Amino acid sequence: MNVHEVIEEVLQRIRPTEEERAFVEGLMVELRGLAEETIESSGLDVKPYFVGSLAKDTYLAGDHDVDLFLAFPLETPLEELREKGLELGKAIAEKLDAYEVAYAEHPYVRAAYRGVSVDLVPCYDVRDWRDVRTAVDRSILHTEWVNEHLNGRNDEVRLLKRFLKGINAYGSEIYIRGFSGYLAEILVIKYGSFLEVLKNADFMLRQKVIDPGDWLKREPELAMKTLKREVETDRPLVLIDPVDPRRNVAANLSWEKYGRLYFKARAFLKEPSLEFFFPEEARVGSYLRELRERGTHLLTLLFEKPDLIDDVLLPQLEKSARGLGRALAREGFGVLEWDTGYSGGRAFLMLELERIERGRVRIRPGPEFFTERALDFYAKNETVWIEGKRLYTEKKVTENVVEVVRGLLEKSQVPLGKNLREAIKGADVLVDYVPPELEREAYLFLRRERKRIK
Amino acid sequence: MNVHEVIEEVLQRIRPTEEERAFVEGLMVELRGLAEETIESSGLDVKPYFVGSLAKDTYLAGDHDVDLFLAFPLETPLEELREKGLELGKAIAEKLDAYEVAYAEHPYVRAAYRGVSVDLVPCYDVRDWRDVRTAVDRSILHTEWVNEHLNGRNDEVRLLKRFLKGINAYGSEIYIRGFSGYLAEILVIKYGSFLEVLKNADFMLRQKVIDPGDWLKREPELAMKTLKREVETDRPLVLIDPVDPRRNVAANLSWEKYGRLYFKARAFLKEPSLEFFFPEEARVGSYLRELRERGTHLLTLLFEKPDLIDDVLLPQLEKSARGLGRALAREGFGVLEWDTGYSGGRAFLMLELERIERGRVRIRPGPEFFTERALDFYAKNETVWIEGKRLYTEKKVTENVVEVVRGLLEKSQVPLGKNLREAIKGADVLVDYVPPELEREAYLFLRRERKRIK
Repeated sequence: MNVHEVIEEVLQRIRPTEEERAFVEGLMVELRGLAEETIESSGLDVKPYFVGSLAKDTYLAGDHDVDLFLAFPLETPLEELREKGLELGKAIAEKLDAYEVAYAEHPYVRAAYRGVSVDLVPCYDVRDWRDVRTAVDRSILHTEWVNEHLNGRNDEVRLLKRFLKGINAYGSEIYIRGFSGYLAEILVIKYGSFLEVLKNADFMLRQKVIDPGDWLKREPELAMKTLKREVETDRPLVLIDPVDPRRNVAANLSWEKYGRLYFKARAFLKEPSLEFFFPEEARVGSYLRELRERGTHLLTLLFEKPDLIDDVLLPQLEKSARGLGRALAREGFGVLEWDTGYSGGRAFLMLELERIERGRVRIRPGPEFFTERALDFYAKNETVWIEGKRLYTEKKVTENVVEVVRGLLEKSQVPLGKNLREAIKGADVLVDYVPPELEREAYLFLRRERKRIK
Repeated sequence: MNVHEVIEEVLQRIRPTEEERAFVEGLMVELRGLAEETIESSGLDVKPYFVGSLAKDTYLAGDHDVDLFLAFPLETPLEELREKGLELGKAIAEKLDAYEVAYAEHPYVRAAYRGVSVDLVPCYDVRDWRDVRTAVDRSILHTEWVNEHLNGRNDEVRLLKRFLKGINAYGSEIYIRGFSGYLAEILVIKYGSFLEVLKNADFMLRQKVIDPGDWLKREPELAMKTLKREVETDRPLVLIDPVDPRRNVAANLSWEKYGRLYFKARAFLKEPSLEFFFPEEARVGSYLRELRERGTHLLTLLFEKPDLIDDVLLPQLEKSARGLGRALAREGFGVLEWDTGYSGGRAFLMLELERIERGRVRIRPGPEFFTERALDFYAKNETVWIEGKRLYTEKKVTENVVEVVRGLLEKSQVPLGKNLREAIKGADVLVDYVPPELEREAYLFLRRERKRIK
């Protein structure tokens, strides 16, 4: 297939059908009616806005979650907005199928209706970036800006979003740090099409700043401040938000995720295929055979998954795995890689190690020899020598990695995610074995399937 | 034995007998006669001086090498001093048993006579530190100063020198960096006796500067400059040379060797014994059993010893072993310790390693992903991922340490002593085996017998 054939085929799959489109539009009309009716009977001065990919018509087929924002007048005190907003959300949700309260910067209602997830989010009715008071307030401005500038290139956005999903670079969540939908939309608007974005994947890095709102002219001082700050924190891209000169739309984009686009864009342009958009599930082989071939070992800590949302849980899992990896490396086990995740009710840390028994002689540095503590060290150890100003000793140790992990955890010598400490201290520690439900994870981990770009 | 009994016993062994004393004195008279006679017939204006431990009567029984300095007038050009000095040395040596030319800052003659080594060293006839032009010129001043101030405490110096030898802290050679004889003499003069030096081994560090020549009063500017320089280079002791305010007598003393005195002085005062002065040869056991018990491995590089003096050879051997140790550590072999030496016509580097086969998966960092080189790296490697801005790959390797050493040496990736490069590249590489003549070395190395202080 040439590139146009590929694109046509992808569009067939991701462009909503007329039927789906009619369903979505009907749903929005219905929801707006319900919201307005509830607002009126509540006596509040609130306007409902649809935001997000549905409102911008950039959603992918089958992926039509609704974001309905409830905009309060700017003069509403924040406390009142939180309280009344939640109340109003609940009152609307009562008329839908089911709901729960979720927590971000402030609480909002996540409801379900006709098989679709509907977020009812209170915000301020801002007209301008100067009015922005909470993190969600810009969404209305984003939706307006995209709708004004997209000029019918909605399918181009769909292609880019699907491509980013396919190469595992989509999503601005803190534990993903990839491209947000809004960032994808702006890139299409800026470069003109999906293919042009790919062709410019290299150039956008070298260009360093993208300023579709022309803020560097309109608000030079603020925009320069943003630019300077973001360059100093070494972001791969600085894309000054067209609706707010103080914000870099790509602030959460990591070098890794940007790098995935960088390489995959090049590879796709060279040899286009559907695989980029719809990668086949990696064929799963035996993790035990992988271990044998690699000559390495797999250490798994398995524990009860605490009841936390991914935004909180995943960074803590990563912190814990990184901490354990560093501690084991210091202890003389070669640590090649780590990964984390959860499956069923249990979370895991996996580490690939070069060995599971450690060298029987360990050299330990002591204090400088002319200190009080040095006399202690001298008295306590069997073999002592001096290098530079410091005393050293060696110890014979015969430990297995499991004992070492237990010892480190008992002595709290591993930096762990704060909500995971107790769970990890009680974890099952498995060596070169995982329970059946983790076999796939273990294989993908050892093959580096999730992070490799080649 | 109490401390006085120990000291008495040691003195019995190290104080020269009347017979030895008579022999030495006769030898000096005879040598002076020969020297004067040769000088006279050469028509040179040169004065012979005895310097060193014989001239100061601080030599140990049986250890009576002669240093005969040939002092030229200050107005002699340096070239002429080198040339005529060597000629004169040779002319004197012709009347002795045998000789060879040795090289330090300038060449001198090392002769043998009646079983004693006699160094004939040209120098300037300096009266004062302002006249000093070559490194050896101060020796005459040192000898005079010690003879003026020692006040009969010659045996105390003998005790301290023997103690320093016994604890392996004696010798100012660059490859030893211990206490020189002159430093030992000054310490006895300063603290009054052998035992007082031991009692002050801690205090002399805290005091930081010892100034027996009172230079801080007599030449405050120069002496302060010396003090400042030596403190900045972090020497354990600053002992301003009583004959030259610009010089720290302890400039070559390492923290390790000072530390040996520090601990051994304390141990001796607590529990005096002959062992400190005359340590028993470590009983030698099987290095193979040591290896088995320690669970480690011994890597030995064995090669022809180049014809170099110790001052040149030993630092180069150490540099090479350190370089190889670092390279192997980087390559993933745990390096516990190294040692060097020579035996018969062959020199060796020994390293104790945690393992001799290395982990089969090695992670290698590549260039930053947005560079030209990154495209190469991406093309060349099978698995590639991004961390931060950098590309990484992993390779399966199945190497034994011998292959790795050969590879490192071939690719010149080990910093080696410059006169040893060729020899080491052609070295035999032995694992967990040494030839019989090195079995003792291997055992002492694995037991850390030479460097341990406990």
